[in-house]
Amino acid sequence: MSHLKGNVLPDMPWQEKPANCRMPVWRYSENPIITRDAVPNANSIFNSAVVPFGEGYAGVFRCDSRSVSMDIFAGFSKDGIHWEISAQPISFEGDPEVTKREYRYDPRVCFIEDRYYITWCNGYHGPTIGIAYTFDFKTFYQLENAFLPYNRNGVLFPRKIGEHYAMLSRPSDTGHTPFGDIFYSESPDLTFWGKHRWVMGQITGDASAWQSKKIGPGPTPIETDEGWLLIYHGVINTCNGFVYRIGCALLDLEKPWIVKARSRNYILAPQELYECVGDVPNVTFPCAVLTDAPTGRIAIYYGCADTVTGLAFTTAEELLQYMKDYPLEETT
Amino acid sequence: MSHLKGNVLPDMPWQEKPANCRMPVWRYSENPIITRDAVPNANSIFNSAVVPFGEGYAGVFRCDSRSVSMDIFAGFSKDGIHWEISAQPISFEGDPEVTKREYRYDPRVCFIEDRYYITWCNGYHGPTIGIAYTFDFKTFYQLENAFLPYNRNGVLFPRKIGEHYAMLSRPSDTGHTPFGDIFYSESPDLTFWGKHRWVMGQITGDASAWQSKKIGPGPTPIETDEGWLLIYHGVINTCNGFVYRIGCALLDLEKPWIVKARSRNYILAPQELYECVGDVPNVTFPCAVLTDAPTGRIAIYYGCADTVTGLAFTTAEELLQYMKDYPLEETT
Amino acid sequence: MSHLKGNVLPDMPWQEKPANCRMPVWRYSENPIITRDAVPNANSIFNSAVVPFGEGYAGVFRCDSRSVSMDIFAGFSKDGIHWEISAQPISFEGDPEVTKREYRYDPRVCFIEDRYYITWCNGYHGPTIGIAYTFDFKTFYQLENAFLPYNRNGVLFPRKIGEHYAMLSRPSDTGHTPFGDIFYSESPDLTFWGKHRWVMGQITGDASAWQSKKIGPGPTPIETDEGWLLIYHGVINTCNGFVYRIGCALLDLEKPWIVKARSRNYILAPQELYECVGDVPNVTFPCAVLTDAPTGRIAIYYGCADTVTGLAFTTAEELLQYMKDYPLEETT
Amino acid sequence: MSHLKGNVLPDMPWQEKPANCRMPVWRYSENPIITRDAVPNANSIFNSAVVPFGEGYAGVFRCDSRSVSMDIFAGFSKDGIHWEISAQPISFEGDPEVTKREYRYDPRVCFIEDRYYITWCNGYHGPTIGIAYTFDFKTFYQLENAFLPYNRNGVLFPRKIGEHYAMLSRPSDTGHTPFGDIFYSESPDLTFWGKHRWVMGQITGDASAWQSKKIGPGPTPIETDEGWLLIYHGVINTCNGFVYRIGCALLDLEKPWIVKARSRNYILAPQELYECVGDVPNVTFPCAVLTDAPTGRIAIYYGCADTVTGLAFTTAEELLQYMKDYPLEETT
Amino acid sequence: MSHLKGNVLPDMPWQEKPANCRMPVWRYSENPIITRDAVPNANSIFNSAVVPFGEGYAGVFRCDSRSVSMDIFAGFSKDGIHWEISAQPISFEGDPEVTKREYRYDPRVCFIEDRYYITWCNGYHGPTIGIAYTFDFKTFYQLENAFLPYNRNGVLFPRKIGEHYAMLSRPSDTGHTPFGDIFYSESPDLTFWGKHRWVMGQITGDASAWQSKKIGPGPTPIETDEGWLLIYHGVINTCNGFVYRIGCALLDLEKPWIVKARSRNYILAPQELYECVGDVPNVTFPCAVLTDAPTGRIAIYYGCADTVTGLAFTTAEELLQYMKDYPLEETT
Amino acid sequence: MSHLKGNVLPDMPWQEKPANCRMPVWRYSENPIITRDAVPNANSIFNSAVVPFGEGYAGVFRCDSRSVSMDIFAGFSKDGIHWEISAQPISFEGDPEVTKREYRYDPRVCFIEDRYYITWCNGYHGPTIGIAYTFDFKTFYQLENAFLPYNRNGVLFPRKIGEHYAMLSRPSDTGHTPFGDIFYSESPDLTFWGKHRWVMGQITGDASAWQSKKIGPGPTPIETDEGWLLIYHGVINTCNGFVYRIGCALLDLEKPWIVKARSRNYILAPQELYECVGDVPNVTFPCAVLTDAPTGRIAIYYGCADTVTGLAFTTAEELLQYMKDYPLEETT
Repeated sequence: MSHLKGNVLPDMPWQEKPANCRMPVWRYSENPIITRDAVPNANSIFNSAVVPFGEGYAGVFRCDSRSVSMDIFAGFSKDGIHWEISAQPISFEGDPEVTKREYRYDPRVCFIEDRYYITWCNGYHGPTIGIAYTFDFKTFYQLENAFLPYNRNGVLFPRKIGEHYAMLSRPSDTGHTPFGDIFYSESPDLTFWGKHRWVMGQITGDASAWQSKKIGPGPTPIETDEGWLLIYHGVINTCNGFVYRIGCALLDLEKPWIVKARSRNYILAPQELYECVGDVPNVTFPCAVLTDAPTGRIAIYYGCADTVTGLAFTTAEELLQYMKDYPLEETT
Repeated sequence: MSHLKGNVLPDMPWQEKPANCRMPVWRYSENPIITRDAVPNANSIFNSAVVPFGEGYAGVFRCDSRSVSMDIFAGFSKDGIHWEISAQPISFEGDPEVTKREYRYDPRVCFIEDRYYITWCNGYHGPTIGIAYTFDFKTFYQLENAFLPYNRNGVLFPRKIGEHYAMLSRPSDTGHTPFGDIFYSESPDLTFWGKHRWVMGQITGDASAWQSKKIGPGPTPIETDEGWLLIYHGVINTCNGFVYRIGCALLDLEKPWIVKARSRNYILAPQELYECVGDVPNVTFPCAVLTDAPTGRIAIYYGCADTVTGLAFTTAEELLQYMKDYPLEETT
Repeated sequence: MSHLKGNVLPDMPWQEKPANCRMPVWRYSENPIITRDAVPNANSIFNSAVVPFGEGYAGVFRCDSRSVSMDIFAGFSKDGIHWEISAQPISFEGDPEVTKREYRYDPRVCFIEDRYYITWCNGYHGPTIGIAYTFDFKTFYQLENAFLPYNRNGVLFPRKIGEHYAMLSRPSDTGHTPFGDIFYSESPDLTFWGKHRWVMGQITGDASAWQSKKIGPGPTPIETDEGWLLIYHGVINTCNGFVYRIGCALLDLEKPWIVKARSRNYILAPQELYECVGDVPNVTFPCAVLTDAPTGRIAIYYGCADTVTGLAFTTAEELLQYMKDYPLEETT
Repeated sequence: MSHLKGNVLPDMPWQEKPANCRMPVWRYSENPIITRDAVPNANSIFNSAVVPFGEGYAGVFRCDSRSVSMDIFAGFSKDGIHWEISAQPISFEGDPEVTKREYRYDPRVCFIEDRYYITWCNGYHGPTIGIAYTFDFKTFYQLENAFLPYNRNGVLFPRKIGEHYAMLSRPSDTGHTPFGDIFYSESPDLTFWGKHRWVMGQITGDASAWQSKKIGPGPTPIETDEGWLLIYHGVINTCNGFVYRIGCALLDLEKPWIVKARSRNYILAPQELYECVGDVPNVTFPCAVLTDAPTGRIAIYYGCADTVTGLAFTTAEELLQYMKDYPLEETT
Repeated sequence: MSHLKGNVLPDMPWQEKPANCRMPVWRYSENPIITRDAVPNANSIFNSAVVPFGEGYAGVFRCDSRSVSMDIFAGFSKDGIHWEISAQPISFEGDPEVTKREYRYDPRVCFIEDRYYITWCNGYHGPTIGIAYTFDFKTFYQLENAFLPYNRNGVLFPRKIGEHYAMLSRPSDTGHTPFGDIFYSESPDLTFWGKHRWVMGQITGDASAWQSKKIGPGPTPIETDEGWLLIYHGVINTCNGFVYRIGCALLDLEKPWIVKARSRNYILAPQELYECVGDVPNVTFPCAVLTDAPTGRIAIYYGCADTVTGLAFTTAEELLQYMKDYPLEETT
Repeated sequence: MSHLKGNVLPDMPWQEKPANCRMPVWRYSENPIITRDAVPNANSIFNSAVVPFGEGYAGVFRCDSRSVSMDIFAGFSKDGIHWEISAQPISFEGDPEVTKREYRYDPRVCFIEDRYYITWCNGYHGPTIGIAYTFDFKTFYQLENAFLPYNRNGVLFPRKIGEHYAMLSRPSDTGHTPFGDIFYSESPDLTFWGKHRWVMGQITGDASAWQSKKIGPGPTPIETDEGWLLIYHGVINTCNGFVYRIGCALLDLEKPWIVKARSRNYILAPQELYECVGDVPNVTFPCAVLTDAPTGRIAIYYGCADTVTGLAFTTAEELLQYMKDYPLEETT
């Protein structure tokens, strides 16, 4: 029985769980699906987002160039696995004070009502959350930045909560932020934001050390009958740097700042060579999901080592059960 | 000729400029006006804000206790110099998620339309900007926090800009933030905030090194016929720590994120013993002004060494002329 | 009514509490009692310990030389205020592996049974706790270092707890340690130490921020009918460095690792010029007490700004009452 | 001719030295012998210790869970290569103040007289050295922590030195300690510890830079006719983090704090992919040896990249000769 | 048409550009050409320099020993690919104050007029630039260190500029320097240096982030008809450490501190396993080139992961064109 | 008997040693001689240099402006105590690449042969040593910067050593350098510099901890019959920042990189309020001396707390004797 609401995508990318797999998430056998040079002059393609679009799929991709300039690019695919990514970055319509590009990275895409919203980490005298919408992934209209700097990982909910648009984000600082909690904010119009609520933070101590340094929201939250299923990243600080792993949580449907469950265990971690070796070793960073409501299938798109893009599979049931099998007692 | 708009306060605290004073700002001869133990169990009283109120003055004061807990307290004065400060911190009416106290410090007070608004650095899973209003400095109604953490020094404009309330602030991090620019934000309702605009930042290099590490807005901006007169703090990082000095800038009346002038020179700096010695040496930190429109007089209330409260005087004309005498060429 | 046990010292240094004093501890009116150059070639004399001895008093003093070499020196006094301090540092009898001097600082002195024990921060491939005893403050016999490095502030109890000697200390690192909890340890013979118990640590958050970075034991614990009265130092990290203040706690008589009460408020803090200005600004650091059981009087010897030595007064009743008036709820 | 004393283990794991091998230590051809998921829900299994036990071998293994909780697990093997590790961590009998688990990692096992002692890094308000014993690797009795925090890598000697138990350890701090010397301590009863002696420290400068940041003891010291053969880890700080390599030293039999020889060269370093890539790249960390006295064979168990467990071989003669071929002149 | 001046080396190492290669530089198919253990007792061989010599080639190689001592070694080769490297480090004739070895690393070799000059990072109370010359790669005569500490990457021009010898270098600090600009200096006699000119620095912001932390000169500049072609390294600071990539610039022939062009894109970056995994992950570090004037061929020798030595190919035309295709607008 | 060579200045500033003074240096009774606002728009005047000139004295003064811009100003005095300082900073003739001002501070002045040389910390893409000369303190001719960045405290010798000009300096980094040794360099022409020799460095450990973090040369070395008498600053790092004290050394006359004696004790340290309180607390920083050969008198000009300028007195005999009384055994 599926717990998912939303899209019906019978042909979405999928592989069955391997027989001997003890984890709730399993990798696509042909990973990485997008290599670092799938776009001319790309240094790396990772931390990218996809959605169903027309007969197939569309996406917004972080492609760092060979000058290591960070920008976001539109792409299209028939099967969600093989992608045609534009060689030119997205350009935006809008107020020049806002559209003036400093840098753009780590996009998310979220369909709400009648259009596709893009959110990303947008340079405006420091990193903040850029917002834009498109109908066709060809013309993009940029809105005001959601927040004051310094912020990263702005993730919209796929429908209004009450009467307001809603977003998760991770307030940050100007550099390689050594802290990070997830907050929830609302907006009547996607321009003015307020009613900020703390959702959850790092887990200090030994209980769940993979998320002991900082956490941040990943793909668009997935609506289930039990709550919003949030896939997020968590970071530990080892003596040789950060390790980015993936976990999940269940947020209250109407008050999403209330955490109903949270994974004590990670659900995916850097273990394959393409996740452990690259421009930033030991990073798995999820930015998008495709879901199929009837079957409960979930395909997770995640960046690997800040270099390539991977695909992994799970189901809503797997994740919900995993949080029950390995509950996190304290969420302070 | 005075450039000031606004209050008529012929009896506000005032001393004439000493004959041999070369600076545009001069200290009150009986400084500090509030000592560290003016309130029972206080460790220090500083970084506090006052406004005209009734026949005299009211204020909100940062009093750190002898447990070094940071909180804000209401007070009243007939002359603006001798203050009766409550022995109990302010308590707020409002949504418990918001009024739940972590810590409160560095208040500002601003009269808009029909009431007094208080803004301060409010602990909510990190420092952010708390907002409340009062009619009588007895009952205080707290609104939503303006921004996501991490932020300090939220300063309201005394009237709407266009159709929106407007605030200056300094996005920060979780600790002793080693960076800091001033941003401008708007709100239709004091709950949802957006249209964030960068105003000005640190001055790197030698041109104006007293503000080379970070800056932040101080008292409520003062409306003049030439623009908003902003008094702010600037910080340099010496090999023995931060020095907090005071400068001024002139912001466009209708688009206050446009800087029309800015002081290359500081206007006040820690030089007296009560400014150089205390819990945090070498700090002068302005949080409030009183102004008298007909004469152009300005009285600045400023914290000294994070320990006591000082008073200093100037006029609009002095400051406007000083920025012309010592213009800052580049404001990037 | 006095709560104190132990010495009867009717002539110990004393001044009555000033009429308007709101604090539980008040300074000697002629502070500092020992200036920085009371010993030839001394740069500073501070963080020192005294005990009743014969008709008067003896002590061990930290005198940093004008080469800023740290060593400890014996001294004698008739009244506890005017001191004759040796011009030569103490030399120790004992195993050369242990007596070989690297550096010595922050001594404490404690009479147990038949002799005076000295403990201090002793350089042995890092700071650890040196122990020695003397009968006459002329010949000193050094024992094994109590612990492995890195440790500071070893403070003996004035009698055995159960069948063992007992010591408080603060495990540290090799530098200006940014952490520090108080631990309790026991020894059957003052050579082998074990049964280590955590006593108390920093108070994070706003509740008692003066002790939010680290704490360490100060003078020999004072036995009262309610428990061991411990005077200790607590440190906050401001943007311009550490501030060392003084607090107190009450430890269980038989299980001294159990904290029965602890001061939320500090009892003394750097506020006088000789405490705020010196080689290390803003330090008050207690190392010794004299007590008079019948009256409950306590005289505290404390280092000021790592430069000179001050004296302050209180009573057992004052401190016990103060902890009741300002209780610290959480001691985690 | 063998120099070893102690166990006769003709069937211990062994492979002959490859013909073209220039190093004194060579890897097992089927490394790693324990993969990261050899235990259900394990994230990684490494830094573990084994001993001869009954007809085969027993061991204590560090298994970090998929919540990245660090704990230690018992295991058994017939051949020392293929291991059955319990799915449940060890639980300890003893004083609840001591057995209360914060975290446990990096175990060592040492047989003394009639039982097996386990030492490990034990969380007790900071890392210190936990001690326990077992007769059967099923029931474990925990003793008092050996030292005050902060300490890591407590390694017992396999017999008393003089009349006392003896331990090597590495005093540390609360985090990713950037310093570390090896010290020696004694105890009459495994509860109270003292007579601390410095053994050796980092080698600054270029002479032996692989051990220029910190060092720590590894497996139980091996008794030879020339002294105690100590295998230890040494760390260099590169611009991309720490590299943990393995070296050896020879300690005096009766005064083990006297270093008779020390390897200028490392004897094993991260070079294979499973040593260079993993949760913490570039770590080889030895925790146990098996030895066969008649042949002088030594099998070293070592953690790889904080992820898996490797096995390597050498002989006492190889190591003793290597220290003669590449002597370290200065050991300060 | 070739732009190169200088050597004619028809038999220099060379492979044609692969058909599908989009980069201006391509790797030798048999990389790495020098493994970490090509010299007995070597830990790693990398960051090394070669020149044409006699019928073949000679070189100076950085070989870190298995004690991780850093030194430089002479070697010879017939084909530039297979090398015979001496087992003993170079010893130098000269003033003992200068020849006294602390450490030596990252050599460059440059033929000027009648002899081969070696420059390297030379320990003399901190890193500075050592200079020596040889006629035969057997006897080496060391001159005065070029500069005061702290400096790295001294690279001579292959002919005088005007009447002076000329050198590029990167002033540094004592550790893992987090900054670094390229400067130009002149000398009449290779002993006294002056006329220091800033050439270029890091590129802050997003424009060319691979060189946003520091840069330093690589091989001997290559004379072309358009200017000096400089191949250099650039470094970004990721949350998991530095990544060293390779870029190029064109310097004015007569005033080489004037940058005529500079690569916005890197020309080579760590992407192969031997570049990403090793003692210092993610390092490609160029130290030498061979060139053939008639064909314009360039062979680049570069260190990989501070562990092995790689070889890559390009042409002058490729690099000059690449800077035109991807121009860097701002070079401040 | 005087040991001094050089100037005869019977009227130079002087006060006899106070009767009870135990130190070899004593302060002028009217200190500070130059207050922070002796020049219009000055924030502070300190770290300045004077020389005999004509009938009186001339000097170059560091005056930080009220924008905290650092620059150097010429001044004149009849008695060496009361100064007329120009309101305009010095402007320099010379190559625009060199004279282009970034910032200028901490000047020294040295008469050699026929003119006065000024050296100072000169901003040129980082701090380095600027050099200029003047005949009249009105027109100044700037030469090439002596060294590559990063350097501070360039101090010329008052005559050639052998055939070369000679300079002491302290190589540094880009910020508040936490290290610093004194080096010696030579030049045939004041343009090209080389033959760099290490002179002396910090004293680690307890022997002379006031100079345990960094040292740097102060005034022009004073020629005596026993060697060059060098007055220098030494710095310790306390938990509340750096303390700058003053010491002296004796350098070999012909090989000034050979240290013949060095003060274990400091000769002056921040103890007066104007030395302990100011923009940078706890700084005494010597930049100039006046000497009278017949009497051996020395007047030291030193900056106080980076705010004002002080004057102190000693004699050559005092300093030479003090180094004998308190010899520093190890000078490594």
